[in-house]
Amino acid sequence: MENFENITIIKKANIYFNGNVTSRTILFANGEKKTLGIMMSGEYEFGTGDKELMEIMAGNLDVLLPGNNEWINFTAGQSFEVPANSSFKLVVKEVTDYCCSYGE
Amino acid sequence: MENFENITIIKKANIYFNGNVTSRTILFANGEKKTLGIMMSGEYEFGTGDKELMEIMAGNLDVLLPGNNEWINFTAGQSFEVPANSSFKLVVKEVTDYCCSYGE
Repeated sequence: MENFENITIIKKANIYFNGNVTSRTILFANGEKKTLGIMMSGEYEFGTGDKELMEIMAGNLDVLLPGNNEWINFTAGQSFEVPANSSFKLVVKEVTDYCCSYGE
Repeated sequence: MENFENITIIKKANIYFNGNVTSRTILFANGEKKTLGIMMSGEYEFGTGDKELMEIMAGNLDVLLPGNNEWINFTAGQSFEVPANSSFKLVVKEVTDYCCSYGE
């Protein structure tokens, strides 16, 4: 089972879309930040500040990345990057467990 | 914002009830374990192994504790204990963010 060690976690969850998307923020000693989250089935659009790396641990979703015309399907073990200061759309088809890493 | 520091988090979520209840497990250097979780609206029954302390960070739920005849309402800032090796019922009325501590 993969762990992250020696981290700080913010106790309260981040809650979006009436709880259909939730995450917890973890902070690393080197200043790196990640969120570990759950998306229930549904359609969502998110904006990015920093660049994001989205890693899918479980679930099934279609993603429309910025500048793309085609939706791409992702499942467990796959990941995608989203550029900084952009937006992307998601159609979550099965409850999705993700890890999002921010910045370079 | 309250944090837990110097902890290990298991990357993958614990997923129950088709994702309507999810949590992340965090481990402390002294061996203590907690889960930080989200419950969507719905009715659930859980069994305990170790004794549990459930702290509600956000949300609204009614709880039927073992041996009780009356449901008790809990909201943000409140908490309740569940004895070891027992079961309890929950009616979650608003998306609930919780912290569960195990054992003594």
